[in-house]
Amino acid sequence: MSMRCETVWVHCDSETSRLLRRRLTGTKSGVASTNACYGGTAALLNCVNWVEGNSWDGRYGLVICTAARTREAHWRSGSYCYVDRTNAPIVFESKLRGSHIAHVVDGKLSQTCYLMALDSCYKHLCNNFLLLVFCVTHFNSLVIGSKNLRAKSSPSMMRTTLFSILHTTNSIDEAAKEKFTPFSSLSLDESYQSRDLEKVSQHLAKSFYDAKVQPTTLVPKEVGNMYTASLYAAFASLIHNKHNDLAGNRVVMFSYGSGSTATMFSLRLCENQSLFSLSSIASVMDVGGKLKARHEVRSKGLCDEQRGGILDLLAPGTYYLKEVDSLYRRFYGKKGDDGSIANGH
Amino acid sequence: MSMRCETVWVHCDSETSRLLRRRLTGTKSGVASTNACYGGTAALLNCVNWVEGNSWDGRYGLVICTAARTREAHWRSGSYCYVDRTNAPIVFESKLRGSHIAHVVDGKLSQTCYLMALDSCYKHLCNNFLLLVFCVTHFNSLVIGSKNLRAKSSPSMMRTTLFSILHTTNSIDEAAKEKFTPFSSLSLDESYQSRDLEKVSQHLAKSFYDAKVQPTTLVPKEVGNMYTASLYAAFASLIHNKHNDLAGNRVVMFSYGSGSTATMFSLRLCENQSLFSLSSIASVMDVGGKLKARHEVRSKGLCDEQRGGILDLLAPGTYYLKEVDSLYRRFYGKKGDDGSIANGH
Repeated sequence: MSMRCETVWVHCDSETSRLLRRRLTGTKSGVASTNACYGGTAALLNCVNWVEGNSWDGRYGLVICTAARTREAHWRSGSYCYVDRTNAPIVFESKLRGSHIAHVVDGKLSQTCYLMALDSCYKHLCNNFLLLVFCVTHFNSLVIGSKNLRAKSSPSMMRTTLFSILHTTNSIDEAAKEKFTPFSSLSLDESYQSRDLEKVSQHLAKSFYDAKVQPTTLVPKEVGNMYTASLYAAFASLIHNKHNDLAGNRVVMFSYGSGSTATMFSLRLCENQSLFSLSSIASVMDVGGKLKARHEVRSKGLCDEQRGGILDLLAPGTYYLKEVDSLYRRFYGKKGDDGSIANGH
Repeated sequence: MSMRCETVWVHCDSETSRLLRRRLTGTKSGVASTNACYGGTAALLNCVNWVEGNSWDGRYGLVICTAARTREAHWRSGSYCYVDRTNAPIVFESKLRGSHIAHVVDGKLSQTCYLMALDSCYKHLCNNFLLLVFCVTHFNSLVIGSKNLRAKSSPSMMRTTLFSILHTTNSIDEAAKEKFTPFSSLSLDESYQSRDLEKVSQHLAKSFYDAKVQPTTLVPKEVGNMYTASLYAAFASLIHNKHNDLAGNRVVMFSYGSGSTATMFSLRLCENQSLFSLSSIASVMDVGGKLKARHEVRSKGLCDEQRGGILDLLAPGTYYLKEVDSLYRRFYGKKGDDGSIANGH
């Protein structure tokens, strides 16, 4: 990995941070931050703030989102991004942002809390949209950082649609409005629990879902729960699926987690001819190729020899954990290299 | 606690974050970040970046630094600050900042790593001082976030002095220069280990220490190791000791920790007549009064009744942990109130 200059704002996995410290040269700042499913977004927004702030000195920002079980050096998945201020194909609309925080421990309430957070963030984002009343016609894609796409995205998308309808009566036709009439007397709390309302919303929102959500679902569906990286894997799916048609689009991202902390924020996509064009990002990511190149391995019941065989499956240049010594120092191998690499040395 | 509007960037202790969520109203963003002794500074710099960035909307920023043993709800110590963009008595010179990151596990090397980080940060900070060569004459106070003031501040201060000398030959007299001559052939690594150089530095730096470091040592010496809050307790000591003489001063802060991550950054102090003048900050902090009001309690060997008696020592309005239920929900009492307060409810 070589970069012109580096600043590391690493999220979630201190092991990744340690590896990076060794690989990156130059001045670095920032710190690994251990947090739950919202943590990657917190790190990303910190990074954007840094680039926008007075202390920015032209270096890149780097955010890595991983869900790590550090002891086993088992990284469930990861995603990363650079943040730069020039020639950006992905522009943060920093004023168009809405956040919500609540403390949730009780698992039974978690679905309702998710919906409450989504509504709250959407409401705040709408309030920050100064020129016009914000509604579904103002964004082209909705990216949901759902941990479990099947369980959560449908109702959450329904709620978004519902809220956009409540706020912007122009965005649906008369027939649809009529279908919502029986639920107009429900309180907000009651609306979260109403299965009938969910069904009506689901039906009315089908075309919205197909156009604005479905293109973001490829990687989350193929790879499964990726915790904090889920949102960015969904965004990568969108770039992969539609990179030729995204110029000028607005993408609304919704990040939820850390029981419960959430932010909805807006991105503008621009096509340009620089190194970081949307097409070249799609080409470098090679989402399709990587999904095809996967091997299915079940780790349970493997003997040592079989475990060793897994190394053959790694791509050249991949780092892997070799051992942890009595001082908890980790030693890594690199596919294709001999010898070990000790962290921080 | 009442505030006009709130944004919470909470560091270190998720319990504090939970309490705050309950107490603060309005829109909030940010997330509790669990990290080691540098974490409070990371949260503070994130907060400053947010206020300086495009997404800032006029709300206050709030950073809380605690070293928490969450299970016992035992907070070793804490400090907090607000960040605002108007009428600031404490101004971040955001361009004047130097950072350093290395991975350290081996305890034997920790002292050397501390010195290396200090030198590295000072060097980067000097490089960012564009108009003149930066040296000790350009700042009035040096605040060291030392975990153990006696063990670390002396050699670290020596190194700072040494480095300022190496970089700015104008800042010491001929006699002092002569005393350093015997060490001019030492490599940087050798200089870290040289006891003789340390002694010479210590002697030459005495007046520097008395003028620029000593006024920051009151709270760290009285309270002991406060981890991430140490730096800010030292800064509070300076405001307490010298608030009438600080207008126009530049204060250099050095934060170190999280094995090893460090930043040196610069603050300008201004006197004004607003609510947040240096004198009113000193008056509200009431450092002297709080130090005097302490009670010495040894928790080992206390019976339940004696533990109960400790509640009598708490100031009115203090929150304390009453119980943790089977869902790990924590319930707090408030001195002077009846009943419990459950987090997040």
